[in-house]
Amino acid sequence: MQTTTLQITKCESSKIDQVNFDKLPFGEIFTDHMFICDYKNGAWSNPRIQPYQPLQIAPSARVFHYGQAIFEGMKAYKDDEGGVWLFRPDQNYERINKSAERMAMPPLPKEYFFEGLHELLRLDQEWIKPGIGNTLYVRPFMIASQAGIIASAAEEFTFMIICAPAQSYFTGSVSVKIEEHYSRAANGGFGYAKAAGNYAGQFYPTQLAKQEGFQQVVWTDATEHKYIEEAGTMNIFVRLKDTLVTCPVSDRILDGVTRKSLLQMAEDMGIKTEVRPIAVSELVKGIASGEMTELFGAGTAAVVSPISGFSYEGKRYELPELSKDSYALRLKNQLMNIQYNRSEDPHGWREQVVTS
Amino acid sequence: MQTTTLQITKCESSKIDQVNFDKLPFGEIFTDHMFICDYKNGAWSNPRIQPYQPLQIAPSARVFHYGQAIFEGMKAYKDDEGGVWLFRPDQNYERINKSAERMAMPPLPKEYFFEGLHELLRLDQEWIKPGIGNTLYVRPFMIASQAGIIASAAEEFTFMIICAPAQSYFTGSVSVKIEEHYSRAANGGFGYAKAAGNYAGQFYPTQLAKQEGFQQVVWTDATEHKYIEEAGTMNIFVRLKDTLVTCPVSDRILDGVTRKSLLQMAEDMGIKTEVRPIAVSELVKGIASGEMTELFGAGTAAVVSPISGFSYEGKRYELPELSKDSYALRLKNQLMNIQYNRSEDPHGWREQVVTS
Ligand SMILES: Cc1ncc(COP(=O)(O)O)c(C=O)c1O
Ligand SMILES: Cc1ncc(COP(=O)(O)O)c(C=O)c1O
Repeated sequence: MQTTTLQITKCESSKIDQVNFDKLPFGEIFTDHMFICDYKNGAWSNPRIQPYQPLQIAPSARVFHYGQAIFEGMKAYKDDEGGVWLFRPDQNYERINKSAERMAMPPLPKEYFFEGLHELLRLDQEWIKPGIGNTLYVRPFMIASQAGIIASAAEEFTFMIICAPAQSYFTGSVSVKIEEHYSRAANGGFGYAKAAGNYAGQFYPTQLAKQEGFQQVVWTDATEHKYIEEAGTMNIFVRLKDTLVTCPVSDRILDGVTRKSLLQMAEDMGIKTEVRPIAVSELVKGIASGEMTELFGAGTAAVVSPISGFSYEGKRYELPELSKDSYALRLKNQLMNIQYNRSEDPHGWREQVVTS
Repeated sequence: MQTTTLQITKCESSKIDQVNFDKLPFGEIFTDHMFICDYKNGAWSNPRIQPYQPLQIAPSARVFHYGQAIFEGMKAYKDDEGGVWLFRPDQNYERINKSAERMAMPPLPKEYFFEGLHELLRLDQEWIKPGIGNTLYVRPFMIASQAGIIASAAEEFTFMIICAPAQSYFTGSVSVKIEEHYSRAANGGFGYAKAAGNYAGQFYPTQLAKQEGFQQVVWTDATEHKYIEEAGTMNIFVRLKDTLVTCPVSDRILDGVTRKSLLQMAEDMGIKTEVRPIAVSELVKGIASGEMTELFGAGTAAVVSPISGFSYEGKRYELPELSKDSYALRLKNQLMNIQYNRSEDPHGWREQVVTS
């Protein structure tokens, strides 16, 4: 029987006591429950919360063969009174539906997304630890679960939310390779979608970069490799003199929630911002002249990730040490203060899930 | 216990009697068995044949989130004496390992691929019906089955082979839209790999084309949309005067087995061939002058698929009716004669799996 009311099946006993929260590997340990619902015959149904468990899925399911899969990444934060918060979840909801459209997948009803999310977080709230840096990483995702290997859009999908407790993602600043050969996304492609197919293609070029001593790749435009676009799971910011610059989003670049929040916060702080294409040659010149003093990535997982240096055309360029009043650190602190309910929230970005 | 010897578990009773072989939907019905093996701790192991059945897989498996998945597509043919044949399976084996490298996946040992393939086809040979057009579509594929949502290459994979009985794929000739906005692959991307992420991105633009009355999209270069590249699952050929032309493969274009076989066969037949970029403007001029008389797709699923017309810049162009001595039909017949063991095989392309 199909239903549209959320059904909850609780796990018999929590796994939480087996988890060492001081030493969490990223994205490997999941909470006790998961949210799941099905799309069939043109409609979503059967929203349910179940114990976290393996899926049973046909070997011929489209997702295995044609990558028809999208996801989101968000975090839940606990304040010092035990209140649980999300940060701009409406943005993730809108974006998953944009991704869905581009990948020929059905939009998700708002109630399913938010009811599933809230109920799941309420049930598993013990998994969210208070204290800056502790979060619950929340992964909504949708896959083409329909059996059958014809190379066209599926008509049956599964949407799920799974949650993994996390600590700060990156440690220290990273050294990046500005990519001159490989590309992440094509003009007219689906780089702006948070689609599975955008990620696996980055692994090999990133492995090559790691062998050369870098931690990350900064992707450039696929046509000329002259303009920086974004990193693996981060948008990119540059400080040139006193201006904070980031490139415009496009059909190749993900419209990051962190990116747009930092831009707004920078404006609120009176920092001049510019959104325009950034040529690699500008970075090279900026290092030489000393006018470029910061380069950092921004995304939900790593929040703000300062970049210590980059390579391009076989040369390495080093950025100066970050000062305490760098834009990167000021913005990061301010953002986390909002996320953890430690400061005002002038734009109403916080959404409370559990009251303290 | 891990083993490297093929273990076979047969199904208790065959499903074959429930299948209507006169009315097969493409890729929805699978044979009784499947081949499966695992990659873990740096090595492949546990090759086994099992009854075809659902997979148990963690919701956090990389394949669901990051599209780390590759596949192959080949066919088994039965001749009139009951012999079963594969067509150039070495090419598929080489290609899956090329795809694997680009997608940061481990290469597959030759024995696993061929022993699995041969044993599976021997077991399920009743599913292959004799007669031109009847085939068993064989789908080898590899997925990142490791649990955990960190956005980097997995270290655990599953390789499988599943088989679906099939009849001729396309019926009649198709009308195509030459794409001017969307793209399939980027320079420096992984369009040349048979990777899952290359397919889902095509579904939406193809749906749009279908709404406009076309059956397929012909992809063009992502930079200018001026050169034709390939169709959904086919490489593209043009006949200009007496010359058969196809574009070179590149990092955006799949190196099709059908494509390279047709080129060789055309040469064997004394047909002049050219491998060079093909501008859409040439097609438009070729229609006007009458010098372009054929346009067709070529791939394992559809074999040779004549194109009756195309659209570009809002105009529709129609090709003349195909004559019996068209290159498309001559090549198609010749190819199928080789595949079904009905003619000489001068290049040793056939591989016998079951002797009659
Ligand atoms: C490709 C890519 N760019 C940028 C980002 C940053 O987006 P957000 O700030 O919404 O997490 C992400 C996601 O984390 C991403 O996957
Ligand atoms: C993108 C693409 N192009 C071309 C082809 C044709 O390749 P093959 O002749 O090896 O089947 C395929 C696969 O069928 C494909 O997926």
